[in-house]
Amino acid sequence: LAYRPIITLTTDFGLNDHFVGTVKGVILNILPEAEIVDICHSVIPFDVLDGSLKLAAAYSYFPAGTVHLVVVDPGVGSARRAIVATTERYEFVAPDNGVLSLIYQREERLRVHCASAEHYFLQPLSQTFHARDIFAPVAAYLGKGVAPSKFGDQISDFLRIDPPRPQRIDAATVRGKVLTVDRFGNLISNITPSDAAALAPTGSAQLKIRVGEREISGIKTAYAEGAPGEVFAILGSMGYLEIVANQGSAAQILVAGRNSTVDVLLAARAAGANQE
Amino acid sequence: LAYRPIITLTTDFGLNDHFVGTVKGVILNILPEAEIVDICHSVIPFDVLDGSLKLAAAYSYFPAGTVHLVVVDPGVGSARRAIVATTERYEFVAPDNGVLSLIYQREERLRVHCASAEHYFLQPLSQTFHARDIFAPVAAYLGKGVAPSKFGDQISDFLRIDPPRPQRIDAATVRGKVLTVDRFGNLISNITPSDAAALAPTGSAQLKIRVGEREISGIKTAYAEGAPGEVFAILGSMGYLEIVANQGSAAQILVAGRNSTVDVLLAARAAGANQE
Amino acid sequence: LAYRPIITLTTDFGLNDHFVGTVKGVILNILPEAEIVDICHSVIPFDVLDGSLKLAAAYSYFPAGTVHLVVVDPGVGSARRAIVATTERYEFVAPDNGVLSLIYQREERLRVHCASAEHYFLQPLSQTFHARDIFAPVAAYLGKGVAPSKFGDQISDFLRIDPPRPQRIDAATVRGKVLTVDRFGNLISNITPSDAAALAPTGSAQLKIRVGEREISGIKTAYAEGAPGEVFAILGSMGYLEIVANQGSAAQILVAGRNSTVDVLLAARAAGANQE
Repeated sequence: LAYRPIITLTTDFGLNDHFVGTVKGVILNILPEAEIVDICHSVIPFDVLDGSLKLAAAYSYFPAGTVHLVVVDPGVGSARRAIVATTERYEFVAPDNGVLSLIYQREERLRVHCASAEHYFLQPLSQTFHARDIFAPVAAYLGKGVAPSKFGDQISDFLRIDPPRPQRIDAATVRGKVLTVDRFGNLISNITPSDAAALAPTGSAQLKIRVGEREISGIKTAYAEGAPGEVFAILGSMGYLEIVANQGSAAQILVAGRNSTVDVLLAARAAGANQE
Repeated sequence: LAYRPIITLTTDFGLNDHFVGTVKGVILNILPEAEIVDICHSVIPFDVLDGSLKLAAAYSYFPAGTVHLVVVDPGVGSARRAIVATTERYEFVAPDNGVLSLIYQREERLRVHCASAEHYFLQPLSQTFHARDIFAPVAAYLGKGVAPSKFGDQISDFLRIDPPRPQRIDAATVRGKVLTVDRFGNLISNITPSDAAALAPTGSAQLKIRVGEREISGIKTAYAEGAPGEVFAILGSMGYLEIVANQGSAAQILVAGRNSTVDVLLAARAAGANQE
Repeated sequence: LAYRPIITLTTDFGLNDHFVGTVKGVILNILPEAEIVDICHSVIPFDVLDGSLKLAAAYSYFPAGTVHLVVVDPGVGSARRAIVATTERYEFVAPDNGVLSLIYQREERLRVHCASAEHYFLQPLSQTFHARDIFAPVAAYLGKGVAPSKFGDQISDFLRIDPPRPQRIDAATVRGKVLTVDRFGNLISNITPSDAAALAPTGSAQLKIRVGEREISGIKTAYAEGAPGEVFAILGSMGYLEIVANQGSAAQILVAGRNSTVDVLLAARAAGANQE
């Protein structure tokens, strides 16, 4: 079977409007053999960090050669640039507003080009829908085999944003926060094993975690290990500490959500020191 | 044109997270020529019966050879098995939790294999996202032509759940309930013509149905036969008795929903007997 | 690479049920090589004008030869016809209820055929799900190359509905209304530059627009030109006047929505005449 170029879409467009359909039409008009795959269109409107998270969770599972198109674009029509980022396995097309920051963190070999060559854009060029007029055509031409350097100059001053990192607020506490709440009410924090060595799966049954007023004991490896409705922690499939409930919504039970504080009590194994 | 393997997805993942995109990436990484088709990602979280209903309504319309991947998986990370079910026309990949029960009911020729051969799984294998690490790879390898027997032993003790069936509660009444409410507010009951011979479309204009306090007369064959806002019954496209309104929501008008009781009054043609 | 027939879907089915999946199964069963693309499934239930708007915004971006399947079908099961409309670049399959009206307005060369040849339909033919039993098969056979004339007679009495047009209510005021509110809270009106010459992008900075009690000054060319939270107007990517806010929801700020009145004050450049 012939190779088919894959183009993924990650946007804050939602699915109630024509936006996603229009973008797909533009891509197929340039590259009719494209295989277009939705990663997610429910990025929080204008939230580049949320877009970066959704993309980071999924992109590395796609075949080498995939073009990842990412549009969370509060600055559409302003001077912000359009960029093409190239890693060992993938090409990314996005506005230069930090939405690729987690890619920059994770990928060692990275080149970024401006996408400024207007003859690749749709004409007339709107100032309000660059996904249609700039990003989709650039992604389609990349999928067609046009080299990133054809779209514009290589740049090094592309915008990086720092995702919020957990802080050690005292000798015994790592403080993070909830990055996002998933469909099942699981609270995905920004805390990783490297932030809190105690989170390593082995022997951490007595770790304590605090969300709001609630103290949670222990870390399990599967949702099904908890009793139904029990709230506990796991190391989730995105690599982050998650506060979860078995067949229930931790978010509802804890009345917690995006940006809620999550404290990991590192000295919990020692007697009482950090428990109120 | 070359044959393209079709893989459908039915899950409770919703569309707000990266889950569906990640699963598609895994499939395409193994089988780049796959045609992935969403059946539905809005199965009620953890509800295997609801997943079974969504799948049962759609699966038989796909071409022979389609692989149907179904993930509603409250037991992820527990001892529940992953299975491959093979019928005359299709292959199904799912957790062994009953989510295929309606397939088992409808398909005469059926073989079920365990999917336990770990060399087909993604590594490292998480205990929280088997759709990504187990089910998607197994579906992709099936689409690639790997025989079901390669994934594990044939089994006969796979889990079946009995969907709720209508009961004859007295000589004149068949009692069922609402299985699901669709986008338009139609109440889909679990009552079929074989449950109540009186439901056969011919000559049944005087049949009576009771939902809550409301008695509904007659069964029509099309939504458009009712006056706008009128509540009436039809035999719906899924094969079940539906309580509907023309260009309106029966669910709203009747203040009824999932699990509401639906009584069919079989003797309605005889004078008055079952009418209060 | 071989040509793949593209079939787009625009419906009011939502994504919570099996409907869209079933329609895709039917298409692929007839035409396994079809590339099926969702334009939008969130058309307001039963609202043919809303369906027409969503379709009109996206259809022209697809490659020539695309088959556009549109199902917003309050009259399913009644005497309303199924039709195939052919333009220079596209084929459309839809119920004959006006859902293609904006296509009829925009396309000069147009032929419309009845789709009445039952041997193309699924059997048994339901009276409740013609998307599955009639429209999907017809779209698939069109994609397969069957000529529109094979499905039935050419007709000229197909149904057109007039989308609501802005009115000049006095010498100085064009009155339109909000057609739809998009994901970002932008209010899309039915006013185009041809309705109000003053809307032409050049030199119109002093134009005044009234939505409810609120008077808005000036028209910008990009969302990012406004201060965060500022409400202003742009000529949007669909060709209509939009009332928008930079990184905020104009709908929320103005407490306005679908069908809200939008007045363009044409004489705004002259001193004071139309300002209260």
